[in-house]
Amino acid sequence: MEKYSHERLQNFTRDVFLAIGCSEKNASLASQVLISADLRGIDSHGIARLPGYVRLYDHGRLNPNPDIKLVHETPSTGVVDGDKGLGLVVAPFAMEVAMEKAEKVGSGWISVRNSNHFGIAGYHAMMALEKDMIGWAMTNAAPIVAPTFSIEKLLGTNPIAVAVPAGEEPPFVADFASTAVAYGKFEILQRKGLPAPLGWAQDAEGNPTTDSNAVKNGGGLLPLGTDREHGSHKGYGLAAIVDIFSGVLSGANFGPWVPPFATAGFMGTSEPVGAGTGHYLGAMRVDGFRPADEFKSNMDQWISRFRSARAVPGQKVLIPGDPERETEAVRREEGIPLIGPVVEQMEVLADRFSIRF
Amino acid sequence: MEKYSHERLQNFTRDVFLAIGCSEKNASLASQVLISADLRGIDSHGIARLPGYVRLYDHGRLNPNPDIKLVHETPSTGVVDGDKGLGLVVAPFAMEVAMEKAEKVGSGWISVRNSNHFGIAGYHAMMALEKDMIGWAMTNAAPIVAPTFSIEKLLGTNPIAVAVPAGEEPPFVADFASTAVAYGKFEILQRKGLPAPLGWAQDAEGNPTTDSNAVKNGGGLLPLGTDREHGSHKGYGLAAIVDIFSGVLSGANFGPWVPPFATAGFMGTSEPVGAGTGHYLGAMRVDGFRPADEFKSNMDQWISRFRSARAVPGQKVLIPGDPERETEAVRREEGIPLIGPVVEQMEVLADRFSIRF
Repeated sequence: MEKYSHERLQNFTRDVFLAIGCSEKNASLASQVLISADLRGIDSHGIARLPGYVRLYDHGRLNPNPDIKLVHETPSTGVVDGDKGLGLVVAPFAMEVAMEKAEKVGSGWISVRNSNHFGIAGYHAMMALEKDMIGWAMTNAAPIVAPTFSIEKLLGTNPIAVAVPAGEEPPFVADFASTAVAYGKFEILQRKGLPAPLGWAQDAEGNPTTDSNAVKNGGGLLPLGTDREHGSHKGYGLAAIVDIFSGVLSGANFGPWVPPFATAGFMGTSEPVGAGTGHYLGAMRVDGFRPADEFKSNMDQWISRFRSARAVPGQKVLIPGDPERETEAVRREEGIPLIGPVVEQMEVLADRFSIRF
Repeated sequence: MEKYSHERLQNFTRDVFLAIGCSEKNASLASQVLISADLRGIDSHGIARLPGYVRLYDHGRLNPNPDIKLVHETPSTGVVDGDKGLGLVVAPFAMEVAMEKAEKVGSGWISVRNSNHFGIAGYHAMMALEKDMIGWAMTNAAPIVAPTFSIEKLLGTNPIAVAVPAGEEPPFVADFASTAVAYGKFEILQRKGLPAPLGWAQDAEGNPTTDSNAVKNGGGLLPLGTDREHGSHKGYGLAAIVDIFSGVLSGANFGPWVPPFATAGFMGTSEPVGAGTGHYLGAMRVDGFRPADEFKSNMDQWISRFRSARAVPGQKVLIPGDPERETEAVRREEGIPLIGPVVEQMEVLADRFSIRF
């Protein structure tokens, strides 16, 4: 697989966003957020999504020059309206507001409406780290997940990211979808013609299946926990919390009404109950609880204790964020591998906008 | 199984707390919190734990007359020191502080140290509902859960509860441990001499097992997700977040250092790294985001849409909180069933303190 430097991919992404009319500042920020996914090894949320954002623009669902605004607030809470802007710039705006509030009153919590796909949740949560704050990011998404016992798909993969600063150790960064697996894992199996493990998806009638095309063919992803006996109602509850905080608190769409990211195969038609996609961003000052040095020293102790735990043969106990940080170190050096179909899509965009890939 | 009215169980519980020296006010509140678990059908966290609290007292780990204090604060955050008081009264104190802060600045977030078992998380989160607030409650607990790939047990069952008010519909109340199942399910199987489903626990060497005595014999509970292939690293991440917010933010113990609830078989010995057990309580005013009536009307829409979803044959899609609320309605009317061994333990307490069960 050919590798591309992150600078090259980021410049290309910026040029595409400029070509659809984004400002220099927004195009730069959006490209940085998007490529952070490729750097961290979350390929499904990186440059592979660029054609999707352009399709959103083509369908009139993306405003390249949004007037992103805080429309309601208290000292520690508020709602941001993204004005149909790129989630890749709306979410950082909201996170900045959350951090300003945290600076003043200890914490800040912003629910966002009228946005769309915001890239990886982890990017936004990690914005808090350099200010010695804990960052929190969640988003709802188009319905491809069936709650426990449901045949219908009512929830998105609704991820949660929490970033916690440490001292000598690198930060703790959990960033995960509330499903058993991300949809991207099915796409990999589909390309290889392989079945999926039991417990990842159900078919169109709600039966367990190993068909890696099940979700495409009317089935649904399963919540974290897989089935009732193994706690899928907890994964469903978690996805529901993300949906309510992101969608209902802000006045965005929620549940089965969340509009699809512009990806073939998921172009829902239901009438909206709110504005666009919703996010939820939060920041808490560590010293709103304890002196930051004491906290960070305890975090170091937490991290080193877990990392040195006795593991099953051939494995080690990982700290959330370890694998992504290690991937980023390698990819910054060696470049980001792109599969053929993604490269072809970039060439189509390059042709269309008369820019170089 | 004989049934007992909740008033009778609550009065008895209050009398036991009075007998070990709690104030009238604290004994009343603690008994209400404890019996709310029995009412809601979470039998493992109700009156069956009463002998455990008494054992905590006997071991000098419980202060019947604590000076519970807010020891550090910003307008929206703070730390409460529970002074070794009953978690059953420390957590409501902290939740009251969180709600006062929310009243003033939109949200309030309190991390708690120097506490112990606080009953069901849901009770504390639900305190927010009558004020049109969203409530949040978490706690860490003694290590009986093995992170992904770990042989060692480093985390507790670390539950999360989130309560969200609705309008015409009853509230949304998610309250779940971050494990595949609660430990109580093993105790039920042990009494019946039955094996456990694969995916609930591992043995002392980290292998998957169906032995319902595995955790007793050195094994561990598995995080929500069960194994790496089905997302156990997400359940581990969730339990870690609960631990950090409850333990590290407050200066309580965390990870493998969290002291055991006084239950035979889990009497750890490691040196403390903080004060007692930690909790995390939060409250957000709904109208810190949107007018409360708009929010609640959308919550009604959310709830009714999910409840009416097409379900697999013989099942229905439940809203988090539905089963517990239905159990409470029945048990308030018909009484709370107690198994023989629990009744015997109550009789032992009644004898010891010369009170009537």
